[in-house]
Amino acid sequence: MVVRVLNEDELLSYGDIKAKKIALELAIEAIKSSNPYNAVKNSLRIIDRKLVVKGKEFSIKGRIYVLGFGKAAYSMARAVEEVLGEFIADGIIITKYGYGGRLKKIKVIEAGHPIPDTNSFKGALMGLELAKKVSEKDILLVLISGGGSALFTLPEEGISLEDKILTNKLLVESGARIHEINIVRKHISRVKGGKLAKIVKGTLISLILSDVVGDPLDVIASGPTVKDSSTFYDAYRVLKNYRIWDKVPESIRRHILSGIRGEREETLKEELPNVYNFIIGSNAIACETAYKKALEKKLNAYILTTTLEGEAKDVALALGSIIEEIHKRNRPFKKPLALIAGGETTVTLTREEYGVGGPNQELALSISRKIRGLRNTAVIAIDTDGTDGPTDAAGGLVDSYTYDLLVEKGIDIDEFLLNHNSYQALKNAKALVYTGPTRTNVNSIVIAIVL
Amino acid sequence: MVVRVLNEDELLSYGDIKAKKIALELAIEAIKSSNPYNAVKNSLRIIDRKLVVKGKEFSIKGRIYVLGFGKAAYSMARAVEEVLGEFIADGIIITKYGYGGRLKKIKVIEAGHPIPDTNSFKGALMGLELAKKVSEKDILLVLISGGGSALFTLPEEGISLEDKILTNKLLVESGARIHEINIVRKHISRVKGGKLAKIVKGTLISLILSDVVGDPLDVIASGPTVKDSSTFYDAYRVLKNYRIWDKVPESIRRHILSGIRGEREETLKEELPNVYNFIIGSNAIACETAYKKALEKKLNAYILTTTLEGEAKDVALALGSIIEEIHKRNRPFKKPLALIAGGETTVTLTREEYGVGGPNQELALSISRKIRGLRNTAVIAIDTDGTDGPTDAAGGLVDSYTYDLLVEKGIDIDEFLLNHNSYQALKNAKALVYTGPTRTNVNSIVIAIVL
Repeated sequence: MVVRVLNEDELLSYGDIKAKKIALELAIEAIKSSNPYNAVKNSLRIIDRKLVVKGKEFSIKGRIYVLGFGKAAYSMARAVEEVLGEFIADGIIITKYGYGGRLKKIKVIEAGHPIPDTNSFKGALMGLELAKKVSEKDILLVLISGGGSALFTLPEEGISLEDKILTNKLLVESGARIHEINIVRKHISRVKGGKLAKIVKGTLISLILSDVVGDPLDVIASGPTVKDSSTFYDAYRVLKNYRIWDKVPESIRRHILSGIRGEREETLKEELPNVYNFIIGSNAIACETAYKKALEKKLNAYILTTTLEGEAKDVALALGSIIEEIHKRNRPFKKPLALIAGGETTVTLTREEYGVGGPNQELALSISRKIRGLRNTAVIAIDTDGTDGPTDAAGGLVDSYTYDLLVEKGIDIDEFLLNHNSYQALKNAKALVYTGPTRTNVNSIVIAIVL
Repeated sequence: MVVRVLNEDELLSYGDIKAKKIALELAIEAIKSSNPYNAVKNSLRIIDRKLVVKGKEFSIKGRIYVLGFGKAAYSMARAVEEVLGEFIADGIIITKYGYGGRLKKIKVIEAGHPIPDTNSFKGALMGLELAKKVSEKDILLVLISGGGSALFTLPEEGISLEDKILTNKLLVESGARIHEINIVRKHISRVKGGKLAKIVKGTLISLILSDVVGDPLDVIASGPTVKDSSTFYDAYRVLKNYRIWDKVPESIRRHILSGIRGEREETLKEELPNVYNFIIGSNAIACETAYKKALEKKLNAYILTTTLEGEAKDVALALGSIIEEIHKRNRPFKKPLALIAGGETTVTLTREEYGVGGPNQELALSISRKIRGLRNTAVIAIDTDGTDGPTDAAGGLVDSYTYDLLVEKGIDIDEFLLNHNSYQALKNAKALVYTGPTRTNVNSIVIAIVL
């Protein structure tokens, strides 16, 4: 997949051109490295009847099966077919409607996302059958990406898909936190919480594309191949605490109560010796790619964080204050440099009427206030999926001229930020970055270049 | 002045004690260095009939006069008397009611703050007379600190104090930004915007205690000794733009219009060879003190920024994400370390009912979410004046246990942050820092210790 900036000429038509050019290049390299197809290609090899995953060797003694689920499953599977070819015995992937395509050996099923449907159920059943076929000599390659939780949905026996969907709806509406919702999900699923791994007799190798900040393996796609510390009683408490215990279907209550009595299978409680989890694409890997590219360009380079969070416009002020210190006092890092931060910032809407924008655009617009006049400085904030908020832009690229340019045009940046109208402001400064959809998602990255 | 933590035993009774102890010690050293008395004592010497200011020598050929204004004027003057003693020919300081005391040679006037009164006017007139007495051979030592703008108030001739106060009130209520308000202030004052410096024939040495983030000399006390780039026309535009031109007194309009016609004296437009400005206390100096102290303790130390700003709870998430990266991936800085950030964060109240807290307490409470479980980590956020927000605490000190401790006590941190009730939450975790008033103000500092 080719990823490129569609409006590069416009972006580089004025201002701190050199700094902006480097910021763009680093960001694009970072996005490319997290592209599902590229991520698999970069991680997987066959050498002398050995499967090599990120440098670790696995002897091929039997057959290789492939099971994939998530929004990136098709691209990942396509790369797997190119690398493994005839080594693949059988395979199935489940992805979102419209995200599939043709494969040679691996079956492709499209299903509902974010709400599962009968196709999810059907696909998951087929996946389960495949997993059961894997003998001790065989290898099961599991391809996990964002959306995998909904797309690989298989309720425990005795629980209907409708009951599971209703329970999920009640949980989401109850105000429960995502990790609490996941505790319940894992305890009414036949595959989540490491239960898929329990089924597999052979070597299970999962290639994970992380779309969750900090890469918590038990959270990504609800962790079908990793251990989980929560219990049936925890699931009961979540439903009780959020006052939906009496509202969830009878089948759910029955299952959880049996679980508490020890009559149902718990989630995976310890690491299994035949299970190997590899993160092959993530925000951290994207940041590290930008980092290496910066070093190649003879810049100092620093990864400030890979777990950035908080309200975009205020995170911008904090990051901007660090850039200011670097520019004015040459500390804590020395120029010329690339400062890289990954994560996911937020925009909290507080009023009735809003403009258009996204967290990366707000971050870029806000930081233009702090880098005003700091010549040879540029900051790009970009969503790796190519779509920042509900806009057609991937993010924003600002420099030391942006602020004054907007003031000249009569644009009050504080007011535009207050109205969450960053898109319009950046458009006026020719500071929007367009890439189109990149078909990957490892959250967002911010790269500051100070020359 | 002794500055110490009043509840140190309580703070160090549990948790990451070693990290917390270092954080407290560094913060207290930083505050001490910015104490007005200490700051003067550290910067000023007499050696062989030479006045030495921060290493720069000035020959004493004539008399030395002292003129001080601001909330810290008394402490600064007391230190000056101790250092210069008999060298002082005459002096006057103007400080806030209750902030004065007895001095040997220098007259002390107490006046209104933040609203000037007749005493401010009287004091400023006396100060102006003193400044005029300074001959070419003499030295005028000017002591500038926060509050100096209101305390050293002298309207241009033809403008009454009442007219000036009314204009100021209209400006503040108009929604004009602080730098716009200052443009008008400087153009109706006889001393602001470098006009005091213009009057002085001898060597003018100003010792400045900066209470403004980033230390912009033209902003601190409205810059009586530094050049200013704004014009009478700019002042006119501010009053016009905010629709108060027709509301300000006739005397103000007349003065500004004469100014535009070139009939009145402009603010200082170029640096004068006989004027020397020294920042002797500031947030940056406080941060550097903590930095040196950390090095003495064999820690790695980094000043991340000295211009931190933004909403406290979100700035905390950004800083916390950097600490997380250091703790988990040992980058971009190596442990064990002290990470120092100075500036001034804010708390925006958005609802009808609020709890109690301050920006430093909110920052500390919020960052406890990010350092949860990161053992041997502590973060202190503290207002150098000893009073964070409208509370009796100076700030908060949290560690990797704080979050779970609060959860155990049934305190929902997110909810307490939403209600701006950080004081109550931190109190429950024994995480409030008390110092009492420190009689200095160089904004706030955040120090993270990761061992």
